[in-house]
Amino acid sequence: MQFDMSRRLASEAIGTAFLVCAIVGSGIMADMLSDDIAVSLLGNSLATGAILFALITILGPISGAHFNPAVTFAFCLKRDIGLSEGLMYIAAQIAGGLIGTMVAHLMFSLDIIQISINARTGGGQWIAESIATFGLVGIIFAGIRFNANAIPALVGVYIPAAIWFTASTSFANPAVAIARSVTDTFTGIRPIDLPGFIAAEFIGAAMAVAIFGWLLNETRSSVD
Amino acid sequence: MQFDMSRRLASEAIGTAFLVCAIVGSGIMADMLSDDIAVSLLGNSLATGAILFALITILGPISGAHFNPAVTFAFCLKRDIGLSEGLMYIAAQIAGGLIGTMVAHLMFSLDIIQISINARTGGGQWIAESIATFGLVGIIFAGIRFNANAIPALVGVYIPAAIWFTASTSFANPAVAIARSVTDTFTGIRPIDLPGFIAAEFIGAAMAVAIFGWLLNETRSSVD
Amino acid sequence: MQFDMSRRLASEAIGTAFLVCAIVGSGIMADMLSDDIAVSLLGNSLATGAILFALITILGPISGAHFNPAVTFAFCLKRDIGLSEGLMYIAAQIAGGLIGTMVAHLMFSLDIIQISINARTGGGQWIAESIATFGLVGIIFAGIRFNANAIPALVGVYIPAAIWFTASTSFANPAVAIARSVTDTFTGIRPIDLPGFIAAEFIGAAMAVAIFGWLLNETRSSVD
Amino acid sequence: MQFDMSRRLASEAIGTAFLVCAIVGSGIMADMLSDDIAVSLLGNSLATGAILFALITILGPISGAHFNPAVTFAFCLKRDIGLSEGLMYIAAQIAGGLIGTMVAHLMFSLDIIQISINARTGGGQWIAESIATFGLVGIIFAGIRFNANAIPALVGVYIPAAIWFTASTSFANPAVAIARSVTDTFTGIRPIDLPGFIAAEFIGAAMAVAIFGWLLNETRSSVD
Repeated sequence: MQFDMSRRLASEAIGTAFLVCAIVGSGIMADMLSDDIAVSLLGNSLATGAILFALITILGPISGAHFNPAVTFAFCLKRDIGLSEGLMYIAAQIAGGLIGTMVAHLMFSLDIIQISINARTGGGQWIAESIATFGLVGIIFAGIRFNANAIPALVGVYIPAAIWFTASTSFANPAVAIARSVTDTFTGIRPIDLPGFIAAEFIGAAMAVAIFGWLLNETRSSVD
Repeated sequence: MQFDMSRRLASEAIGTAFLVCAIVGSGIMADMLSDDIAVSLLGNSLATGAILFALITILGPISGAHFNPAVTFAFCLKRDIGLSEGLMYIAAQIAGGLIGTMVAHLMFSLDIIQISINARTGGGQWIAESIATFGLVGIIFAGIRFNANAIPALVGVYIPAAIWFTASTSFANPAVAIARSVTDTFTGIRPIDLPGFIAAEFIGAAMAVAIFGWLLNETRSSVD
Repeated sequence: MQFDMSRRLASEAIGTAFLVCAIVGSGIMADMLSDDIAVSLLGNSLATGAILFALITILGPISGAHFNPAVTFAFCLKRDIGLSEGLMYIAAQIAGGLIGTMVAHLMFSLDIIQISINARTGGGQWIAESIATFGLVGIIFAGIRFNANAIPALVGVYIPAAIWFTASTSFANPAVAIARSVTDTFTGIRPIDLPGFIAAEFIGAAMAVAIFGWLLNETRSSVD
Repeated sequence: MQFDMSRRLASEAIGTAFLVCAIVGSGIMADMLSDDIAVSLLGNSLATGAILFALITILGPISGAHFNPAVTFAFCLKRDIGLSEGLMYIAAQIAGGLIGTMVAHLMFSLDIIQISINARTGGGQWIAESIATFGLVGIIFAGIRFNANAIPALVGVYIPAAIWFTASTSFANPAVAIARSVTDTFTGIRPIDLPGFIAAEFIGAAMAVAIFGWLLNETRSSVD
């Protein structure tokens, strides 16, 4: 089945908007309700994983459900989608993400656009973003190869896990990072910290293309 | 397979009763056990999602497992079910929901009928209810289109996520809202706040019919 | 495939032992680590649901994975299994459950057999046990009818939900109740409270046989 | 499909590295964010289960996704894989695990190699490790027999459960135990305590080979 470009871009924009709205909104809710940051992160990470599972299941058949410029970039590197289509996808994702933050603010009666003062920077965090994105892209590529039906569940459990095990709480998504720079709440990131995060994410995606490209390239050996 | 109307209405009533009993009961339990509201919301939201997955799996084949007047309304708008059947469904859902609250009170040895004094009102909350219901109906419609077997899991993860990311903790269901107005516990809502919530929920459902109607209407473009 | 009676009884005993070991052990761990009882119940209920999913998946093909005299009783009422086989199953479940408690105590270096002083009694709790068991048996019967492969997941999510939404924390299992009377830890129950719980559980199971017997008995109506 | 040995060993090393990185990293994150150890264990155990589900799904088709010398040992006992292949797998797992700890330290800007002072020893803990590993290997063997597609989910829910219900928090994996001896954080174990844990794990695996070997050996009896 093949949806036309207007529906595919709408799917990417709506999906990224819902994803960001879930991340930012659950962060606001969790932070408001608890003094224990780990409890807040539980609520925030479980909501994020749950919405990813739902969104990828329902929008995957329309647009592929990237919702993520690093994922779109990886498919471009693999030459699965063209450059101009990729750029349109990325524009839709960034626009959707920004709308998601604004809708979250609207629901919680906060200023629609804010500037985050939440510092997220340094070598450890950049390594974390590269690893988180490497894992995400690797899971998607291996999922496509071995069990495409499992991709919504794979991404839906991987991202909450990565939120917990990476030092950066696993943004792993340049459009989400940009959208989170305009909220001064639990999940925000200073605009000045965006370049480091985004670069690390694209590097992680490129590493996954290389390493999983080799790993998944089946070579039947004569001695096995 | 086709079940007769008495069984289908019983399915809607039993399902909504169990759903409300789970929402109200887990709210009472959680609130009783913790001083951290976010911890209470974790217990409450996970129990809600889990029972939705179970109920939709076992009662879906009998009645479609709406348990929700906004969902029934959306199917009426799509002309998938008729008006008189829809009204009978909604009556069964409201009756079931009220029974669910009473059973929860009975279990916890509380007054059977109470009047909630829990204020839930204002533009942010109404926007939240519209968005929550828009997402719920959209997920159901897209699930029917692409992967009907996944609907119990889709709803079962979407609602707990929406509980966390919407400012209203995502009622997204007029029958549940009515049932929650007669409990003065964790999950209650003042009767006076019902009209705003219910209107917002129907608006969200109608928006989903329109937007997902367009999005899911596959149009193979000649240029792709 | 058909396993002989010795393997089927071993399956019931091993399964119930593991289930009780998980319930009692996770209760000890959770209670030891937290002052917030709701946090303890989260750990306890998630571990219980998870082990149920695993045990029913791997032992279901051998013995049906009842692990529960109320479930075996319901299958006897439906005449799916005979009385003598049912009694052997129940004996294996009770023996397995007691071993499970003892193994949990052994792991945590506690007295192997203890007498619980944890009072669990009264009309609200008995209603709760009936409802919890009614739901469990209903889910199993409807699952067998509509989607047998989903039963491990259905039971694995239903029980944690019921732990949260019932006033009794949903024992819903006479063998587990007996096993929990010999541990004076988080999940214990006074031996004197067993008769009330067990009677309520069998009543709930019988109600499910009646009500779901009618509900699932498809009757194609001529007017639909 | 058959992948050559270099890809299979890379799969075991990458998988074990990601698994250990998730265990150690989420432990550091959780411990840093909360004063309630049960909350920390929730974050740590959910991240561990989630990453196991993802890794086994995507790497299982390449190498079998053991990531665990006790599992490889059990397959050797069953003669499913040869001794030399088993030893290469185990070397890859140990190397990968150590890399995983180092990467976690790198992300959180901690000393790359540390010596744990976290005492984990005594009869209760050794029994716990044997039971945890017995259950893990039993689940894998029964899963292969009855429902191989469910293995990622089975292991992904079993391990978090076992983390909660065993007194040792269920290492159940000698490569992971070794990797956790070089981190002095939440999930660490003193190097001096490794022999007891590892011996207990291999004993549990051997018990599973024996008991599940009998249990799964279908014998149609003439009287059933």
